[in-house]
Amino acid sequence: MDNDYLDSVAWGPDGLVPAIAQDAESGRILMVAWMNRDALARTAETREAVYWSRSRRKLWHKGEESGHVQRVRNIRLDCDADVILLEIEQVGGIACHTGRESCFYRELDGEDWRVTDPVLRDPAQIYR
Amino acid sequence: MDNDYLDSVAWGPDGLVPAIAQDAESGRILMVAWMNRDALARTAETREAVYWSRSRRKLWHKGEESGHVQRVRNIRLDCDADVILLEIEQVGGIACHTGRESCFYRELDGEDWRVTDPVLRDPAQIYR
Repeated sequence: MDNDYLDSVAWGPDGLVPAIAQDAESGRILMVAWMNRDALARTAETREAVYWSRSRRKLWHKGEESGHVQRVRNIRLDCDADVILLEIEQVGGIACHTGRESCFYRELDGEDWRVTDPVLRDPAQIYR
Repeated sequence: MDNDYLDSVAWGPDGLVPAIAQDAESGRILMVAWMNRDALARTAETREAVYWSRSRRKLWHKGEESGHVQRVRNIRLDCDADVILLEIEQVGGIACHTGRESCFYRELDGEDWRVTDPVLRDPAQIYR
């Protein structure tokens, strides 16, 4: 049967699983989004990250607006088959819609979330 | 107000958010689990990873049975405040219940998920 690797994934009740994008070189975690069956199939076929946008309720080819596509080097699955890990090359070096490299730009410092990462590019310049 | 860093998290409708554990040295992603408010508070206080077990419906101090606790060096939050990232030191070098370093021990190879990581210790020896 074709595509039975898609059947091996334990899709949630909403048909989705979380997908982590990790920079293949630095190991930095850049973002977490969601995938459905179609998104994973297209990601595997095109070798560029395609997610499911829960807010827009449609497939989202990451970088379609910003140009910041994610070239996929490797796709991993966890032991419970309900989380996907993409090892990627982040074109433009910016994964976050805030214009930062990573969405994880805050760390807990005592009782506060402290911003640790600079904005590399003004989002108004990215999404024109 | 105490603990308002907990109020900054966009807890899901079930009161949970995903939490990624990443090896602070190697950058490897070891596992993904879930946290509720209590789990994050205890993790921040004790500096050892505490998750919410969805199957057992209770707090889960990672390593409570196996001894494979996770010493937390840093706690990060993403831009949407709905994913937590723990940078940890994995005691025993095994995060996965299968006895492997990482839960992400399979990668997509053509149409198959191929196991890439060895079992470091028989689970029967870990969970006695």
